[in-house]
Amino acid sequence: MTYRKQYVVTRPAYSEDSFAEEHKKFHRLHKTSLDHIKDFLTWDTKRLKNATLSLFPVVSWMRTYRIRQWLLGDVVSGVSTGLVAIMQGLAFSLLASLPPSYGLYTAFFPVLAYFFLGTSKHISVGSFPVLSLMVGAVVTRLVPEDGPPANITDFEGLSQDHQRVLVASSVTFLMGIFQEAMGVFQVGFVVVYLSDTLVSGFTTAAAVHIVVTQLKFVLGLNVPGINGPLSIIYTMEKIFVQITSSNVCDVVMSVIIMVVVFIVKELSDRYKAKLPVPIPIEAIITVVACSVSYGFNFEKTYQVQVVGNMISGYESPIAPSVEVFQESAVEAFPIAIVGFAVAFSVAKVYSNKHDYTIDGNQELIAFGVSNMFGGSFRSFAASTALSRTAVQESSGGKTQIAGLVSAMMAMLVTVALGFLLEPLPKSVLGALVIVNLKGMLMQFREIPYLWRRDKFECVVWVGTCLSAILLGLDLGLAAGLGVELLTVVFRTQFPRCSVLANIPGTDLYKDQKDYLHILEPKGVKIFRIPSPIFFANIEFLRDKLLEAIGFNPLKILRKRNKALKKMKHLFEKQGDTITERNMDPKDLPFHVDWNAELPANISVPRVDLHSLILDFSAVSFLDISALKGLKMALKEFIRVDVDVYIASCDACILEKLHSCLFFDDDIQTSMFYPTIHDAMLHVFRKHDMETKTKLVGSKTKIQTRHL
Amino acid sequence: MTYRKQYVVTRPAYSEDSFAEEHKKFHRLHKTSLDHIKDFLTWDTKRLKNATLSLFPVVSWMRTYRIRQWLLGDVVSGVSTGLVAIMQGLAFSLLASLPPSYGLYTAFFPVLAYFFLGTSKHISVGSFPVLSLMVGAVVTRLVPEDGPPANITDFEGLSQDHQRVLVASSVTFLMGIFQEAMGVFQVGFVVVYLSDTLVSGFTTAAAVHIVVTQLKFVLGLNVPGINGPLSIIYTMEKIFVQITSSNVCDVVMSVIIMVVVFIVKELSDRYKAKLPVPIPIEAIITVVACSVSYGFNFEKTYQVQVVGNMISGYESPIAPSVEVFQESAVEAFPIAIVGFAVAFSVAKVYSNKHDYTIDGNQELIAFGVSNMFGGSFRSFAASTALSRTAVQESSGGKTQIAGLVSAMMAMLVTVALGFLLEPLPKSVLGALVIVNLKGMLMQFREIPYLWRRDKFECVVWVGTCLSAILLGLDLGLAAGLGVELLTVVFRTQFPRCSVLANIPGTDLYKDQKDYLHILEPKGVKIFRIPSPIFFANIEFLRDKLLEAIGFNPLKILRKRNKALKKMKHLFEKQGDTITERNMDPKDLPFHVDWNAELPANISVPRVDLHSLILDFSAVSFLDISALKGLKMALKEFIRVDVDVYIASCDACILEKLHSCLFFDDDIQTSMFYPTIHDAMLHVFRKHDMETKTKLVGSKTKIQTRHL
Repeated sequence: MTYRKQYVVTRPAYSEDSFAEEHKKFHRLHKTSLDHIKDFLTWDTKRLKNATLSLFPVVSWMRTYRIRQWLLGDVVSGVSTGLVAIMQGLAFSLLASLPPSYGLYTAFFPVLAYFFLGTSKHISVGSFPVLSLMVGAVVTRLVPEDGPPANITDFEGLSQDHQRVLVASSVTFLMGIFQEAMGVFQVGFVVVYLSDTLVSGFTTAAAVHIVVTQLKFVLGLNVPGINGPLSIIYTMEKIFVQITSSNVCDVVMSVIIMVVVFIVKELSDRYKAKLPVPIPIEAIITVVACSVSYGFNFEKTYQVQVVGNMISGYESPIAPSVEVFQESAVEAFPIAIVGFAVAFSVAKVYSNKHDYTIDGNQELIAFGVSNMFGGSFRSFAASTALSRTAVQESSGGKTQIAGLVSAMMAMLVTVALGFLLEPLPKSVLGALVIVNLKGMLMQFREIPYLWRRDKFECVVWVGTCLSAILLGLDLGLAAGLGVELLTVVFRTQFPRCSVLANIPGTDLYKDQKDYLHILEPKGVKIFRIPSPIFFANIEFLRDKLLEAIGFNPLKILRKRNKALKKMKHLFEKQGDTITERNMDPKDLPFHVDWNAELPANISVPRVDLHSLILDFSAVSFLDISALKGLKMALKEFIRVDVDVYIASCDACILEKLHSCLFFDDDIQTSMFYPTIHDAMLHVFRKHDMETKTKLVGSKTKIQTRHL
Repeated sequence: MTYRKQYVVTRPAYSEDSFAEEHKKFHRLHKTSLDHIKDFLTWDTKRLKNATLSLFPVVSWMRTYRIRQWLLGDVVSGVSTGLVAIMQGLAFSLLASLPPSYGLYTAFFPVLAYFFLGTSKHISVGSFPVLSLMVGAVVTRLVPEDGPPANITDFEGLSQDHQRVLVASSVTFLMGIFQEAMGVFQVGFVVVYLSDTLVSGFTTAAAVHIVVTQLKFVLGLNVPGINGPLSIIYTMEKIFVQITSSNVCDVVMSVIIMVVVFIVKELSDRYKAKLPVPIPIEAIITVVACSVSYGFNFEKTYQVQVVGNMISGYESPIAPSVEVFQESAVEAFPIAIVGFAVAFSVAKVYSNKHDYTIDGNQELIAFGVSNMFGGSFRSFAASTALSRTAVQESSGGKTQIAGLVSAMMAMLVTVALGFLLEPLPKSVLGALVIVNLKGMLMQFREIPYLWRRDKFECVVWVGTCLSAILLGLDLGLAAGLGVELLTVVFRTQFPRCSVLANIPGTDLYKDQKDYLHILEPKGVKIFRIPSPIFFANIEFLRDKLLEAIGFNPLKILRKRNKALKKMKHLFEKQGDTITERNMDPKDLPFHVDWNAELPANISVPRVDLHSLILDFSAVSFLDISALKGLKMALKEFIRVDVDVYIASCDACILEKLHSCLFFDDDIQTSMFYPTIHDAMLHVFRKHDMETKTKLVGSKTKIQTRHL
C-alpha cells in the first residue's frame, strides 16, 4: 500500500500579457558601472584588515597551529618530501638544460615565499617536469648547445652554463611578474579555460616530449636540443641515427633502475595502507648509484656522463635580463599560465579532500612572488608536482611547515652534501624522470573513456595532445585552447532538436519519439529549441523546424500566390460561379480558405497545421542577427495562417525582444505564454477542441468562468 | 464582463524516477554513421533527376518563363543595370589595380555562367568593391608599382599590366576553385559564422580602405599601393605628404561630380515611387565627363590621368598560374568566403521579398563556376553589389534574363564603344566609387544602436571594423571571426543567474527580485542555472550559487568538524551531561543536530536552508569537466544536510549523467524532478510544511491518497 502525492493546480490560464497584467513587475534599479567602481574604492578598516590578513595567510594558520598534534607529522612528511624534492630537482634540471645544482635551488627558494603567501596547506612547491621542459625550450633556443648564443649583451663574459642560468632565471622572473599581475588584477579566472580535459591532453603530450628529451641521457648520447614545430620528430631522427653508439653501461643501468623503481612503486602503492611513509626509492637508488659509480669510477672507465662539479653553497642573487624578457615574453606567458593552472588544480584536489578553501587570486600572488624571488636566486620555474604533493600529504603533512622542512633538506644538500652527488650518472636521473611519468602517460587511457561519453571532449583531448606533441608545448597549448573554444560554439550550434507532445493526464510535455503513449493533438506542433539562438545556428534551427513540421511555408506561399492569380483570372472570366464557394469577390485580394475544396484545376498542398508552439525554455540568449532570422521565420508561418506561440521564454529575452523592436503587426506580445500547457490551453479554446478527452485524458479540463 | 480560462491540473506529483516508472520510455534505435553513409550512397532515378535539375536551375525557371508578362521588365531592367554595371566595372577595376577594360570583362563573363547555374532571380552578378580591393591587394603585393615583381616564372615576357592581369585572373580562378569545392562538399554553412554584425563591421572597414585608395585618383596623385598591417596609415601619410601637389582640375571635377551624384541619388531615392527606372546618373556623368575631357583635351592641358587605351574586343583566354596560386592561397580563401557571403546575403534579401527559396550550396557552385570561367577570360573576382542589384530589381527585373541583357550591354561597350571612354579622367571614376560608398559608410550608425541593445555585438562590430582597417581585410576578417566566436563563449560563460520564487496561487516560479508579491518558502532556495554548464563557467555558477544562498558549505563543514572535535573532547571529559542534549554517545562519530542549541562555548553558524532546488531547464549541455565540478558542489551541500533537487533536466542530459557515472550513494536519481513545482511539493511533504496556506495560497493543495 503506497501513498502518493497529488499535484493539483487550479489557476487562471495565462498568456505572458495577462500574467504581466495581474502580477505587476517590480521596477529594479540596476547598479551602474559607476556604483561598482564606488563600491570597489570604498575601504573601511575592517575591509583593510581582512585584505591584509588574506594577503598573508600564514598569520591565520600559524595562530591556530597545534604543535602537539601536527608538528611530528609535518616533520616526518617534510623529510620524506625533501628526499623526493631533491631527486626531482636534480632530475628536472636536466629537462631545463641546466646544471643539476640549480634544481636544488628550485626546491628551496620558491618554497620559502610560498610558506608566507600560499593558501594551500598540502602542495609541495617546487619543480614540475612540464614547466622545466618549457623553460628548457627557451634556454636551448637562446643558448644552443652547438652554435653561438642569441645576440644578448648581458651574455658577455659568461660561460655557457651561466648564460643558461641567466636565461632560466629571467624567464622564471618574468613568469612571476605575469602571475603576480594576474593575481593583483584578479584575472586568475583565465585558467578556467584550461579544462581538465585540455590539461590532461596537454600533460600527456608533455610527458611524450619529456621521454624523448631524456632518451639521450638514458642512452648516453650527445643530441643537441632542437626547438620549434616538429622538433620532436627531428630529435627522434637524430637519436635513431646514432642509436648504435649508445653507451651500454648507461643503458643497462637505466633499464635496471626503471624496472626496480617501477616495481617498488607498484608494491608500495598496493600496500599503501600498511606503510607509515612511502618508500624513498628514488633516494635509495641515488645513494646506491652514487656509490657504485664512485667505486667503479664509471666516468673514466665507461665514459658515463656524471652530474659532476656541484656548487657548494648558494651563489649570489642575479638581476634578470630585460633583453631575455623581450626574447622570451611569448613563451613566458604560457609557462605562467600552465604553472599556475597545474598548481591550482592539485591544490584544489587536496583542499576538497580536507575541507578548506583556497583562493585563486591569492595563489597567483603567492606563485608570482615565489617565482620572482626564486628567479632572483637562480632557481627556475616553480609550481607543484602531483607525485611530490601526494608524498607530502600521505606521509602526514598538515601545513606548509612540511614544505619548510623539505626546503631545509634541500639546503642541507646544497650547503654540505652536494659533493656526494658528483659521481651520480646523468642516465640515472634520466631513468628516474621517465619512470615518474607513468601517471601522466597513463592518461592516454582517457581517450576511449571520453570517446564513449562525449565526442567533443575526446576531440579536445586528442587535438590538444597531438598539437602539443607536434607543434611544441606553447603553440600546442594555444591550438588546443582554440579547439576547445570551438567545441563550445559547436555544441550550441548543432543542438539536438525535438518535437514535444503531451503525456496524457498531465501538463508535462516530452519528446514524442521517446514515449509510446503520448498525445500530439492534431494541427499542433510543439518544437523545442534546445539551445541559445545566435547567428551561427539560426539557419540550422530553421531547417530543423521545417523538417519537423514537414513543409516549407515559403513554398506553400508561392504555390498559393500562383493559385490565387489563377483563381483571380478564372473569377474575372467566369464571374460568380466561384464566388459561391469560398471567396469574397468584394474583398480583393481574396481571402481564401486554402484547406477547403478548391476549383478542380487548382491544387495547393494542404496545410494541416494551425498552431506552432516553440518551447524557448532552453534559450539562454538570443543575439541580434538571430533575432532578424527568427522574426523572418515566424512571419513565414504567420503568412500561411499558422499561429505561432512561444512558451517559457526567459524574462531577459522578452525584454531584449522589446528593446530590439521585435514586435510589429504580425508578431505581437500576445503570442508569448508562460508554459507550454498555457499555450496549449489557448490553442484548444481557440480551435474549440475537446480538451477533456483529447488533450489530457480525464484529469485536466479547461473551465470558462466569469471573473 | 470578461471570460477567463482556467488552468486545472490534477495529476500525481512526480519525481523523474516515479515518472519513468509510470511512463515507460520507448527504446529508440539511433541511426549509426554507417546508416547515414548508406543513405548518402543510395541513389535512385528520381533522386538522380532531382540532383541534375537542381544543378541547372535555369531549366526549371525557363520552362515557366512568362514572356508576355516578364520580358519587357527584364529588358528594361537589364539596360538600366547594364549602365550601372559598366560604370562600376570601370571604376572598381581601379580598386583591383587593373586597367579599366578588365572591369567590363567582369561585367560580362561571370554573368553568363551564373545565368545557367544560379538560383537567385534578382542579383546582379559582377564586380563588388570589397572583393576588387582584396584582389587589388594581392595584385600590388605581387606586382608592385615601384620595384620588381615577385619571382614568378610565368611573369616572364609580360608587361606590368599583363602581369597584373595574370595575378588577378589566377586569384579569381583559385577563389572559384575554393567556392566550387565548398559547394560540392556542401560546406557552405561556414558562412553562417559571418553574422550580419560582422559583415557590417567588415564592409564598413572595407569602405574606409576604398576611400583611402581612391583618394590618389581624386587628388590626381601618384601613390604606390602599400600592403600589410597598418598599410592604411602609411598610405594616408604618403598622401598627406604630397597633398600640395594635387591636380586642381582633378580635385574640382571630383568634388563637383560627388556633389551632383549625391544630390541626384538622394532625390531619386525620395521620389523612387514616381520614377519608372532609377536615373542613370553615373552614365550621364560619364558621358558628360568624356565629352568635356575630350573637348578641352584634359590629358594634355591639365596633366589629368585618363583611362587611356581601351582594348577593343576580347583577349584570348588565359591559363591561371599555379605559382600565383601558391603565392596567394592564403588570400584567395577569404576572398572566396567574402564573395559568397555577400552574394548570398543579398540574394536572401530578395528571395525573402519575392517568396522563393535559394540554395546555398548551389549558389556556391554557381559562383565557383562563374569565377573559374571569368578568371579564364581575364575578368576578376565576381560577386554582387547591393546597389546594382537594387537597380536591377527596382527597375522591373524578374529573372536572370535581365542579367543577360546587362552582360550584353557590357559586351557592346567592350566590342564597339570602348574607344569613346578613352578620354575619361580616372578621377571621375574615383569620385563615382567614393560617392557609391555612402551606404556602406552609413553603417557606422549601427554602433550606438548595437551598444544600447547588445554590448557583445557592439564589441564584435567595432572589433571587426578596427582590425580590418588596421590589419588589412584578410587578417582583419580572421580577427573579427575570433572575437565573434569568443563572444559566444562569453555569453554562455557569464550568464545572469537568478533566485526563483513562487507566484502565489500558481505553479509558476519567477525571479524573486522582479515581483513584489512573491513567495519564497522558508528553508528552500530555487536557483536557476540560465545557461549550459561547461568547463569555463562551472566555477562561476558555483560562486553565484554560494552568493545566492549566503554561505559556503565548505566553511560550515570545517567549523562543524572543529566543533565536533571539541564536543567529543568535552564528552570524553564530562560524560553524560551533553548526552541528554542532542548527541547519541553510542553512535560515534556523533550525529549532531546543528541547528539545535549547542553547548555554550561552541558556536557554529546556523544553516537555515534545508532544501536547494536547481532549475536545469536552460541547461542545454553539460560537459565532463563541469560534471565533476557539479558533483563536488552538490556533495558539499549534501554533507551539510541540505537536500539538493534538480528540476526540469533535459532527458539527454540525464542520460549523459548516467553514462558518466554521476550517481553514487550521495547523489541519486531520486533528486531529479520533472518540474520545480513537483520538487517543491516533495519538499513540502518531507518537511511537513503548511502548503495550503504558505506555498500557493488557497488554490493549490497537496493531496495524499492511496493508489
